[in-house]
Amino acid sequence: MRDIAVFTGSAHPELAQEVCAHLGVPLSPTRVSRFANDCLEVQLQSNCRERDVFLIQPLVRPVQEHLVELLLMCDAARGASAARITVVMPHYSYARSDKKDAPRISLGGRLVADLMVAAGASRVLAMTLHAPQVHGFFSVPVDHLHALRELAAHFRQYDLSRTTVVSPDLGNAKEAAAFARLIGAQVAAGAKQRFADDRVTISSVIGDVAGRDVIVLDDEIAKGSTVIELLERLRESGPRSIRVACTHGLFAAGALKRLSEQPDVLEIVCTNTVPVPVDGHEGFADKLRVLSIAPALAEAVRRIHNGESVSALFDDPTGA
Amino acid sequence: MRDIAVFTGSAHPELAQEVCAHLGVPLSPTRVSRFANDCLEVQLQSNCRERDVFLIQPLVRPVQEHLVELLLMCDAARGASAARITVVMPHYSYARSDKKDAPRISLGGRLVADLMVAAGASRVLAMTLHAPQVHGFFSVPVDHLHALRELAAHFRQYDLSRTTVVSPDLGNAKEAAAFARLIGAQVAAGAKQRFADDRVTISSVIGDVAGRDVIVLDDEIAKGSTVIELLERLRESGPRSIRVACTHGLFAAGALKRLSEQPDVLEIVCTNTVPVPVDGHEGFADKLRVLSIAPALAEAVRRIHNGESVSALFDDPTGA
Amino acid sequence: MRDIAVFTGSAHPELAQEVCAHLGVPLSPTRVSRFANDCLEVQLQSNCRERDVFLIQPLVRPVQEHLVELLLMCDAARGASAARITVVMPHYSYARSDKKDAPRISLGGRLVADLMVAAGASRVLAMTLHAPQVHGFFSVPVDHLHALRELAAHFRQYDLSRTTVVSPDLGNAKEAAAFARLIGAQVAAGAKQRFADDRVTISSVIGDVAGRDVIVLDDEIAKGSTVIELLERLRESGPRSIRVACTHGLFAAGALKRLSEQPDVLEIVCTNTVPVPVDGHEGFADKLRVLSIAPALAEAVRRIHNGESVSALFDDPTGA
Amino acid sequence: MRDIAVFTGSAHPELAQEVCAHLGVPLSPTRVSRFANDCLEVQLQSNCRERDVFLIQPLVRPVQEHLVELLLMCDAARGASAARITVVMPHYSYARSDKKDAPRISLGGRLVADLMVAAGASRVLAMTLHAPQVHGFFSVPVDHLHALRELAAHFRQYDLSRTTVVSPDLGNAKEAAAFARLIGAQVAAGAKQRFADDRVTISSVIGDVAGRDVIVLDDEIAKGSTVIELLERLRESGPRSIRVACTHGLFAAGALKRLSEQPDVLEIVCTNTVPVPVDGHEGFADKLRVLSIAPALAEAVRRIHNGESVSALFDDPTGA
Amino acid sequence: MRDIAVFTGSAHPELAQEVCAHLGVPLSPTRVSRFANDCLEVQLQSNCRERDVFLIQPLVRPVQEHLVELLLMCDAARGASAARITVVMPHYSYARSDKKDAPRISLGGRLVADLMVAAGASRVLAMTLHAPQVHGFFSVPVDHLHALRELAAHFRQYDLSRTTVVSPDLGNAKEAAAFARLIGAQVAAGAKQRFADDRVTISSVIGDVAGRDVIVLDDEIAKGSTVIELLERLRESGPRSIRVACTHGLFAAGALKRLSEQPDVLEIVCTNTVPVPVDGHEGFADKLRVLSIAPALAEAVRRIHNGESVSALFDDPTGA
Amino acid sequence: MRDIAVFTGSAHPELAQEVCAHLGVPLSPTRVSRFANDCLEVQLQSNCRERDVFLIQPLVRPVQEHLVELLLMCDAARGASAARITVVMPHYSYARSDKKDAPRISLGGRLVADLMVAAGASRVLAMTLHAPQVHGFFSVPVDHLHALRELAAHFRQYDLSRTTVVSPDLGNAKEAAAFARLIGAQVAAGAKQRFADDRVTISSVIGDVAGRDVIVLDDEIAKGSTVIELLERLRESGPRSIRVACTHGLFAAGALKRLSEQPDVLEIVCTNTVPVPVDGHEGFADKLRVLSIAPALAEAVRRIHNGESVSALFDDPTGA
Repeated sequence: MRDIAVFTGSAHPELAQEVCAHLGVPLSPTRVSRFANDCLEVQLQSNCRERDVFLIQPLVRPVQEHLVELLLMCDAARGASAARITVVMPHYSYARSDKKDAPRISLGGRLVADLMVAAGASRVLAMTLHAPQVHGFFSVPVDHLHALRELAAHFRQYDLSRTTVVSPDLGNAKEAAAFARLIGAQVAAGAKQRFADDRVTISSVIGDVAGRDVIVLDDEIAKGSTVIELLERLRESGPRSIRVACTHGLFAAGALKRLSEQPDVLEIVCTNTVPVPVDGHEGFADKLRVLSIAPALAEAVRRIHNGESVSALFDDPTGA
Repeated sequence: MRDIAVFTGSAHPELAQEVCAHLGVPLSPTRVSRFANDCLEVQLQSNCRERDVFLIQPLVRPVQEHLVELLLMCDAARGASAARITVVMPHYSYARSDKKDAPRISLGGRLVADLMVAAGASRVLAMTLHAPQVHGFFSVPVDHLHALRELAAHFRQYDLSRTTVVSPDLGNAKEAAAFARLIGAQVAAGAKQRFADDRVTISSVIGDVAGRDVIVLDDEIAKGSTVIELLERLRESGPRSIRVACTHGLFAAGALKRLSEQPDVLEIVCTNTVPVPVDGHEGFADKLRVLSIAPALAEAVRRIHNGESVSALFDDPTGA
Repeated sequence: MRDIAVFTGSAHPELAQEVCAHLGVPLSPTRVSRFANDCLEVQLQSNCRERDVFLIQPLVRPVQEHLVELLLMCDAARGASAARITVVMPHYSYARSDKKDAPRISLGGRLVADLMVAAGASRVLAMTLHAPQVHGFFSVPVDHLHALRELAAHFRQYDLSRTTVVSPDLGNAKEAAAFARLIGAQVAAGAKQRFADDRVTISSVIGDVAGRDVIVLDDEIAKGSTVIELLERLRESGPRSIRVACTHGLFAAGALKRLSEQPDVLEIVCTNTVPVPVDGHEGFADKLRVLSIAPALAEAVRRIHNGESVSALFDDPTGA
Repeated sequence: MRDIAVFTGSAHPELAQEVCAHLGVPLSPTRVSRFANDCLEVQLQSNCRERDVFLIQPLVRPVQEHLVELLLMCDAARGASAARITVVMPHYSYARSDKKDAPRISLGGRLVADLMVAAGASRVLAMTLHAPQVHGFFSVPVDHLHALRELAAHFRQYDLSRTTVVSPDLGNAKEAAAFARLIGAQVAAGAKQRFADDRVTISSVIGDVAGRDVIVLDDEIAKGSTVIELLERLRESGPRSIRVACTHGLFAAGALKRLSEQPDVLEIVCTNTVPVPVDGHEGFADKLRVLSIAPALAEAVRRIHNGESVSALFDDPTGA
Repeated sequence: MRDIAVFTGSAHPELAQEVCAHLGVPLSPTRVSRFANDCLEVQLQSNCRERDVFLIQPLVRPVQEHLVELLLMCDAARGASAARITVVMPHYSYARSDKKDAPRISLGGRLVADLMVAAGASRVLAMTLHAPQVHGFFSVPVDHLHALRELAAHFRQYDLSRTTVVSPDLGNAKEAAAFARLIGAQVAAGAKQRFADDRVTISSVIGDVAGRDVIVLDDEIAKGSTVIELLERLRESGPRSIRVACTHGLFAAGALKRLSEQPDVLEIVCTNTVPVPVDGHEGFADKLRVLSIAPALAEAVRRIHNGESVSALFDDPTGA
Repeated sequence: MRDIAVFTGSAHPELAQEVCAHLGVPLSPTRVSRFANDCLEVQLQSNCRERDVFLIQPLVRPVQEHLVELLLMCDAARGASAARITVVMPHYSYARSDKKDAPRISLGGRLVADLMVAAGASRVLAMTLHAPQVHGFFSVPVDHLHALRELAAHFRQYDLSRTTVVSPDLGNAKEAAAFARLIGAQVAAGAKQRFADDRVTISSVIGDVAGRDVIVLDDEIAKGSTVIELLERLRESGPRSIRVACTHGLFAAGALKRLSEQPDVLEIVCTNTVPVPVDGHEGFADKLRVLSIAPALAEAVRRIHNGESVSALFDDPTGA
């Protein structure tokens, strides 16, 4: 079999290191130069020729820098005669641009998928895409992992007999429903109302949460406004306890602080698909639990490289 | 401007006739031959050269026949030097295959989009896609209309003050929520539970339906099993009245009869994106109301042809 | 070398089984589901990842169903990371749509070739294409086998010293001429005349058939009308004996019965590129001899998989 | 409407001039430079921007020079922002490479079609392709004219009551049969035999030629060996008269002289799809009649430019 | 003719405004949103359907933001059915990544060209590309303007009789030579030497500069280090006067200050292909002269839109 | 690993033989046929299936014949199921058409790169491209070798202490500068002047050549006019000695004779990327030294085949 070669961009080198440690292969060095005119140049610093190349890069802030860097890495690997180029993208942030809900807007989720292919990507390994349909935006094979397994393992330490999983958004409640099934819980969802001035707010929680142990689950928490708003609605119904969980814990604009300061939020759980926020979060991270998806990614990479079934291992728990 | 030329396949010629009547242009004849070896051949029987060609064909039963016929029509129009080929597809049934929820399955929603482009389609005019993300499966421009406007106009004849719109599926409740906002109603949804034997059933209705005037809304009703099952759950909560509505009324396998026989279902509303079922439904269609979307399609075709804004007219009411 | 994985659609599972038996590999299971809205979904039920995948499917009645099923199989294999996808298509019925003999018609032979590539096919293994030029419709490599070898082996049991091979169509006589050379026989052909009312009939047989042992040879017999008409012209010249042979014995619309009832037809020979017609042919199949091309297909598959020369084995006997 | 711009390469400027004269548009100048390293450069010397560009170039000797020149012309027109590029190719000589009759050979007919598209051609106007299937080698629209109309007009000056059209090759007899139908004549064909030493010769003429007025018809006459050989077989049957006709009169390697010296050949008829051979043919061209297809090409160009039906004018007389 | 619609991204709205003023068309509004997860979304806020769309965006700092924004603008215009999308890119900074001078590096100049096409760009209008070969990186038509005309007009106010144009780099001296020919001056160039420690410095000036009026000319000045280094070498030869000129005046990292502080530099001339640096340059811009290329861009846009020859107006003065 | 298979076209079989000898693999036979209509057909005469195929063909006179032959070879290898097709092109003469220096001209360097990919080339191995940017014209990986190493080895036999490398063209002086650095010499260049009548001549030599040992270096010498002209300018400065060197010694139109007859030219050095001119050069080749690049090509082929780093061996000496 062709040798494996793993590179990382500058978005999340810690995760790449951890994946490589699990794989037992070295992380090959990448040099990213910025010219005086602000253009980037990438050099992959070990032989790619006929190698099975994996490029690890979640699309996190600064997203545009990391995206172009990734595209240049693909181009460099292709030009260097890589046998196959797998983009390992633990967080595909552009997946949220998945529909045209206004005239003449860009459809970033599809565009960025096409750009990766134009730059040379042969396949993609993604995690917890915002919507399962985003899989279909790619014209190359995608292995789509979920962190629900890791999240479920974490929550099983608790008594789940009176638990309700709550999705902040009725329209995206499928993942919450899948997670509820996985841990034997009930499900509820926030319903949004559009007002005349075009604001959208959560007007009510659909489903039973009074006296329940609530787990608020979303795929991604950025500014956290939706979760904060949901918490207000939830409190009106008197839940017994509240925990917040997500796969992609971006925690932008002080979100971790704001969530941590909610006195009735017992715990905030996320994974390391994106870098753990540290700067400016000192003292506010007490409630934060970060689960590592590096073992799952490493096992998927190993199976992709060896031609073993990935689905056999990572059964999609959201399958209807 | 280039002349317009409208053709129809054999899937729904009545709709094509109605659209052409609204447009004030003749429906150009199409000849579909079936050879002794069961292969199809299409001949477009009026000049396509440098014309702005529209091909009207919903993907209804027999779906595979109508799909291949449509692909052959695209090919014929391309080979005949059409300036532009717009597929008018009021019902894109393959949109339901929009995610990989099992290993090694086909992703029909994306594949068929690619096949249409491979066959020569320059653009698509679709109606009420199963999920808004399906838009992103196409590599050509898509105009995506919704029938919510027509449905809302119909229901506004009633007192809507105590109305709840119920989506059969929590995971696809976005359209129901949009419709509820449009008519100033509340929203609820059925929640599904997966059992050990892999059956999925609606275990409960999330949201308040007791004493409410319920409108069950789905994008497509085929066999109607999900709706029937939802009705059973609804009755447990004692709604005041029940109506059933959808855009695509396929009513396969006796669905119309079964739904009509539900004594507490007052009305079944659908549109003519697909042919109205007649054979075998005699006596069971009393509760059926079929709304025509031909005026909407005709206006969209006219605007596409003239280069006028389509979004200006048909604001997507589901936009968040 | 990558492992081999062979799947079959629902068009001709018996042939697939026979090919697998010759190859000594198991036939991997395929699940084809039909949804309530008549759309198909395919699941390949064993690991395809990095496998050398072969999909066996002749395009026989119902052709459109089998074609879309095949395209979905290609898509599923591609999405499941197959290393290579070879479509084994013993009968490519759309090859008959190989020219534009009327304005604005579809060119199915080229279109379907493009669709297979759009769906993910990496290469094709075909048998007795209607015209050798159809090879050039594919943008991927094609291995094109002929059944003339099998047919010749069958006829060599007879005294061939006074034999004339007759092509029903002067314009497609190349294969008949090649077969005649292969068995050391003479060649003749039917000439068609177009009448004012656009009917085309065989007006005469060009070449010497009086007192000869005639083998009527065509690539495909569907309704058999052309052969029946040719037989009438042949009888005017007094042949000594008549046999009918073809590669693809579709025998649609009672063709086998009609041909068998011709008292002077001694034998009807075809191969199993398509399923042997059984239902409704009871009592009429006495004259039918079905030759198996499974050994030839299996050997070609083996050589393709092993990177051995296919042409070395299956010299094209029609080469000029 | 966009303006028309017609350019010619160096293959057949006389024909381009004649086409332009019929069209009433000037022939735009082209500069072809040959560098010291033998590479070519093309400059189109009038504005192409948003023009409807036609490039006239039959692929005649030296074929490779003319092909590369044509590809460079396409590239120059594309780079110069032509709105549409139609290659007018009265003789597509590579169409003869239309099948794989030996292992590992090139398929020039398909390859060159792809090269033209890669170089920027939007569509093709061709004349009398060697086989009608070659149409399907192109991924862009093709208008395929036939010279049978011009040939028929010429021969109708004679008494055709005892005429037989003879195709040199049984396998390509379709065009001869179509021409025979067009002028109300009978048809015959030469049958080829392959000998052990791999030579192929015409072993016999299939069909009735004794005492008939024979018109030998082929699409192209290059060295003329096949025709000369056919004449020998024909004479064994005692025809009343012999004429030779073709669309593409290449007359390579002294073919015109050799054919003219056949005392019983009354006339040699061809068209000007290729340059009329003059040098070295002095004194041998007495029997030659060259028919002009420039009016037909000009009318087709005019209709393509205006978006009028081409098929309406030039009904394909070979249609079955 | 289709209507024109001009949009600008956020890179250089002043230039877009100026171009629109010269064109006499309004600048259509663009909305760029940044989501909480740092992803961008673009909405073009006037009708694009069947319009001739021009998107103005130089790739200036922050380059990656502006590049992704531009790609999203292309995508939005394509999805909104623009008839044609022309990227107006007055500064293509990635053109400097035009060769592989180290193993396994990215080739940004080609990659970004491909990305723009993948995102929907139909054509490009560029200015003073770093090397003329970069034109060939694009698979769509490029109109390549030069600012040499504007620069020459500026310098013609001076006595040019003793002028030498100096290129900082011998390998890119073609543009300097072209400019010298344009203003009737001599040419010289800096020669670089690579030392053992891999530093490259200008070791000498090749050509005669003693007592001459020197114009240092480069395509782009970013940090200005090369120019500063060249000035040191020039002074060793005693020029009579020194002026510095470039098309793209990026002036990064205090370059404008550093250059202005060179006492013998009389003038620094650039164009407004990129925004004029203001912040932090107060007091240092006295020597700066910014020439506007908006009239040239506007005239090119007008001609592209009207299908008039662009080359006729803007003869490439660097042509050999 | 897949087996290697090396074929040569008719451009330079001696080089292919030499490369194969160094590789220790046989040169597989190729049959090139020319039909009576001047079309070419290629047959690769040993098994290509799943082989790692290398096709050796410099684009030398007659360029168009050799180019089309190469494209047919690519097509044949692709159709014969080659696993990978590497075009080994020691001289890519069309690289000189690398920019648009006049309106509406072809860009042969990019076009031919695209044609090779359209014909099936998977990658390219090139030598001393006219400009390093030409690398970016290819959409497939390119390994770009330089002959500077071979040339340097040759010249190191001489005392290089007073050597100046002179580029005939200031705009292409980068390679000369690189070579000068490689052998520790100085660099100079000819400057061209365009006169009113559009002639371009070398008006002066920029840099110091008086009393120096001059090596005139160009990538390609065809007619040699530029070198002859440069020699005249050089002599005005009194160099101590003159040698002429290039990678691609085409020596067209008596160039070798003309150069040899220059009495002060001591030596003319080239490599065998192109066939050594023999006919008509008898007696004039005394000063010619031909260096073999076959060992370098063979080592590169070996490394490409084995997936070893090519850059590790052949460091690009022109890298800045």
